[in-house]
Amino acid sequence: MSVRIGRDTRGVYIISATPFTESGALDLDSLDRLIDFYLEKGVDGITVLGMMGEADKLTPEERRTVLDRVLARAGRDVPVVAGVSDPGLANLADLGKYAMDKGAAGVMVAPARGPIKDERIVGYMRQVCAALGPDVPVVYQDFPQSTGVPVSTRAILEMTRELPQIVMLKHEDCPGLPKITALRASETDGAPRLSILCGNGGLYLPQELGRGADGAMTGFAYPEALVETVRLHAAGDADAAEDLFDCYLPLLRHEQQLGAGLALRKHVLMRRGVIASATLRAPAGGLGAVDIAELERLMGRTERRLKER
Amino acid sequence: MSVRIGRDTRGVYIISATPFTESGALDLDSLDRLIDFYLEKGVDGITVLGMMGEADKLTPEERRTVLDRVLARAGRDVPVVAGVSDPGLANLADLGKYAMDKGAAGVMVAPARGPIKDERIVGYMRQVCAALGPDVPVVYQDFPQSTGVPVSTRAILEMTRELPQIVMLKHEDCPGLPKITALRASETDGAPRLSILCGNGGLYLPQELGRGADGAMTGFAYPEALVETVRLHAAGDADAAEDLFDCYLPLLRHEQQLGAGLALRKHVLMRRGVIASATLRAPAGGLGAVDIAELERLMGRTERRLKER
Amino acid sequence: MSVRIGRDTRGVYIISATPFTESGALDLDSLDRLIDFYLEKGVDGITVLGMMGEADKLTPEERRTVLDRVLARAGRDVPVVAGVSDPGLANLADLGKYAMDKGAAGVMVAPARGPIKDERIVGYMRQVCAALGPDVPVVYQDFPQSTGVPVSTRAILEMTRELPQIVMLKHEDCPGLPKITALRASETDGAPRLSILCGNGGLYLPQELGRGADGAMTGFAYPEALVETVRLHAAGDADAAEDLFDCYLPLLRHEQQLGAGLALRKHVLMRRGVIASATLRAPAGGLGAVDIAELERLMGRTERRLKER
Amino acid sequence: MSVRIGRDTRGVYIISATPFTESGALDLDSLDRLIDFYLEKGVDGITVLGMMGEADKLTPEERRTVLDRVLARAGRDVPVVAGVSDPGLANLADLGKYAMDKGAAGVMVAPARGPIKDERIVGYMRQVCAALGPDVPVVYQDFPQSTGVPVSTRAILEMTRELPQIVMLKHEDCPGLPKITALRASETDGAPRLSILCGNGGLYLPQELGRGADGAMTGFAYPEALVETVRLHAAGDADAAEDLFDCYLPLLRHEQQLGAGLALRKHVLMRRGVIASATLRAPAGGLGAVDIAELERLMGRTERRLKER
Repeated sequence: MSVRIGRDTRGVYIISATPFTESGALDLDSLDRLIDFYLEKGVDGITVLGMMGEADKLTPEERRTVLDRVLARAGRDVPVVAGVSDPGLANLADLGKYAMDKGAAGVMVAPARGPIKDERIVGYMRQVCAALGPDVPVVYQDFPQSTGVPVSTRAILEMTRELPQIVMLKHEDCPGLPKITALRASETDGAPRLSILCGNGGLYLPQELGRGADGAMTGFAYPEALVETVRLHAAGDADAAEDLFDCYLPLLRHEQQLGAGLALRKHVLMRRGVIASATLRAPAGGLGAVDIAELERLMGRTERRLKER
Repeated sequence: MSVRIGRDTRGVYIISATPFTESGALDLDSLDRLIDFYLEKGVDGITVLGMMGEADKLTPEERRTVLDRVLARAGRDVPVVAGVSDPGLANLADLGKYAMDKGAAGVMVAPARGPIKDERIVGYMRQVCAALGPDVPVVYQDFPQSTGVPVSTRAILEMTRELPQIVMLKHEDCPGLPKITALRASETDGAPRLSILCGNGGLYLPQELGRGADGAMTGFAYPEALVETVRLHAAGDADAAEDLFDCYLPLLRHEQQLGAGLALRKHVLMRRGVIASATLRAPAGGLGAVDIAELERLMGRTERRLKER
Repeated sequence: MSVRIGRDTRGVYIISATPFTESGALDLDSLDRLIDFYLEKGVDGITVLGMMGEADKLTPEERRTVLDRVLARAGRDVPVVAGVSDPGLANLADLGKYAMDKGAAGVMVAPARGPIKDERIVGYMRQVCAALGPDVPVVYQDFPQSTGVPVSTRAILEMTRELPQIVMLKHEDCPGLPKITALRASETDGAPRLSILCGNGGLYLPQELGRGADGAMTGFAYPEALVETVRLHAAGDADAAEDLFDCYLPLLRHEQQLGAGLALRKHVLMRRGVIASATLRAPAGGLGAVDIAELERLMGRTERRLKER
Repeated sequence: MSVRIGRDTRGVYIISATPFTESGALDLDSLDRLIDFYLEKGVDGITVLGMMGEADKLTPEERRTVLDRVLARAGRDVPVVAGVSDPGLANLADLGKYAMDKGAAGVMVAPARGPIKDERIVGYMRQVCAALGPDVPVVYQDFPQSTGVPVSTRAILEMTRELPQIVMLKHEDCPGLPKITALRASETDGAPRLSILCGNGGLYLPQELGRGADGAMTGFAYPEALVETVRLHAAGDADAAEDLFDCYLPLLRHEQQLGAGLALRKHVLMRRGVIASATLRAPAGGLGAVDIAELERLMGRTERRLKER
């Protein structure tokens, strides 16, 4: 598929986990099943090699392997975005070019660590865009809780204006609802439209949609919750969207715990029969018996509640 | 009331907001109504002058005024804990002694900013306890997202063993569920019991109770939600507790947004007819029309859902 | 003296320590001697109640007492700037107005903690200026290592343009040399001139002067080093200025250690016979025998080197 | 050379820069010259692939290339330590094993980002040691200003006791002088000795040696300054050591600016005729004309002062 993401992209781009065997090797069969699962649940796109994809623990070859595999499996069905963040700009650009050559729909970049100054961040993205070339659509990942690099609304607007290839904001600044409102308001003042897909596990998704977000880009282990919430909201039924979303909220909030959530997410994906093992690459905390019992109880409650609707 | 908090204290200690008039003056009539409201909703204790009480924006006199007023109104009914955190140890101790003389049940202290080293933090609490005197029960507020000072489980245990007057942990490290499990497990290994009341707006309350927490110390604007959740859980019906809690969760999660939640909380308290104005002391962001509409919609959804039970 | 600081202010504004007795009480006799010492050493101004003045450990009354005392002692001789930073805007403005009424030449403000966003910080300073009134000259303290709030060069320019009463930058961003160059370059593009006095203990003072800074605002315990360095530089002899500065550099670098330097500084002031006790208010680390021997050896080396010139 | 670092290792381990051509490719000829330069200046060891070696901007192949080249050039003369820090434990261990197979004397590891809790960090180092195998000597890099992970003295002691292969501390916590004293004091209480080599550009080297450090592990572009300071100090002449050191201090302090120093360092190495280009890999700020003039003036002053001795 030669489709690329753009400033009007909408829907749910699931952040794909990267499955490993119990010994920590890439588990490509599980990856296939995971991609099929995401497609079956109706996602509009897939983002691979994000933070939740443990990309920084993969070798460059493994990153390419994952990308190849996902593009082969899903690339004809939905756009695939490649996370390419890297401390080195050349490494970033190499992976980005590889991804685009292989058929990716765009790349996602979080700003490199460094001084928290708008000029530095805008300058960094300028360098990123130049290194990638002007034809590569870029998602700016605004996730200060993890990157350590907050950025102001106006710096985002500055990038948007100057660098047309920055087509999308992965919005996960927190608290971040007013940022969506401010960005949308700027459009009525003539700023170019930016696609806004929201992260943070989806914790505020109904409110984000209400403020003008275009969807979600996150990795909740029940992707159907995100898909259906966004679909109902787009169809104009905000209350039905939120009624459904609220059924999942207890589990979603649990999974969203920063720094702990990925282990939970992979466990759910394993329990749902999608991936063979919930293993994370070291260093990473695993789940103890108490964690698992607590999580599975929440899964049970969620499924019961869905049935009772 | 001469009751003091201790290592077996349980229940819901509501963190009281501090009401202001629209011009930013203390609104003591609203404070009276707020305290009555908390008592009517069945809280087991009240904590004043916490972070959410905007204590650091009050003058020392105002802090004493708030304390006097709350003790006069509620001190015969429930234990009142006084937040006394301060960059200066002498100021901290002065307020702590004042509070205890006036009938407070204990004081709450967050560690002063400084190097993030267990030794430094334990040493700081040693100084705090010495300055307060051994008869003053102390709550250690473990809220690194706000204080910038994370502390390890074993440093908490070290304080607990060495300083018997540290009787309670205000638990709001995040992710922090395993910390509760680790602390409770240490008791079976002979560590002294610590009362654990949980903060973070209550976002993980059912799970925290399931892991052995004794209740909540937080400020959700529907205190009845916390009270009833804790009560049902203590009565052995964890599922009923969580069913009820989940009705409030969409709003609770919204209010819990770090750095934005207090404005929401005060607006809810105003809309519920408890306080006259939702004003925060400057510097503080207020709510715009979009924020208010969003919040009130969530209130409406919550109340509808409670009715439909 | 009714002189106020302005955008052309130059020289050395010493940051005054606040002397305490060994029991931690204000030591006003030592404060008098300290002020006399600063004046004898030729400082151009004095800043009281800064971070190094332990202002956040004083009560509001004590702050006023210190201010009164310093203004009475030095206010006819040199401009006195009052640090008024406070988590609450009303408290900040109250102290600022008090200081100006009593004859201060301006106030110094560091941004309140909060989201690291240029808009937020500019907005905060807008509120500060409005609360103080337009006649009060303001020093913006740019010290992210301590405040946790970095700010970009362009946000400083934005404040400078919009808020004429922000007349001075206390420059201590680090690394921060390019910021001086950028600010001075902006003036040739029409931005209003800002007085720039540098902090960080003076660690980069010759370079800062070389880039266009107007002097120093810091608290090195040998103020004569700062005064003479700035004087020689202003007289056009940058090499002589730096030759002198370098004699002090080993000690200055030692004293500048962030978070440890104030104890060293007060010890030097005590050893020089200026203040009676090197006591810091708790919580604060004191000096051990090793620390003292190391420091006094450095003092000895410095004084020997000065003699050998 | 099959020598490995151990708990008694002393001297100056220079942190090697990684030279690039102007287009950003590895410049192996310059690397050879740089290693020869370090050896000529008398360093006791060389550390490659540290933070100042821009290791995180190299590909895994490039890291191996650098390691091979340095080991071939210097491995028979001095011990070579390989920086192997990596977000992924498997990648870290792979590079560590490669380095040891090729003749490295040990590896250096900074803790992965994550919760700032002593238990987590000790647990992480336990995992690192297990993954490397017990025969690999490990340097623990304690550099919280850059890693975001402070660690307490007692956690270091805990590692030292439990994991005999952790033989060295790269000490660059700041302020960090008391940590050296505390570690050395613990040895008289029976804790195993740890080699302590100090970083931070050498800014406090005489004081660190005075407190019992074994030398330096840092990258100042005049390695002879570090070598001679350590040699004179070891010979018992602390004053002569510091007299020499102080000649370099103005430049050393300038080069030590966190986040800006590497560009300065590479420029000095280029001006001294050692490497062909001062290029840093992107993203990285370069030097402007003002920066270069300022730096070269400081070089000139340093060289003049050395001549005048």
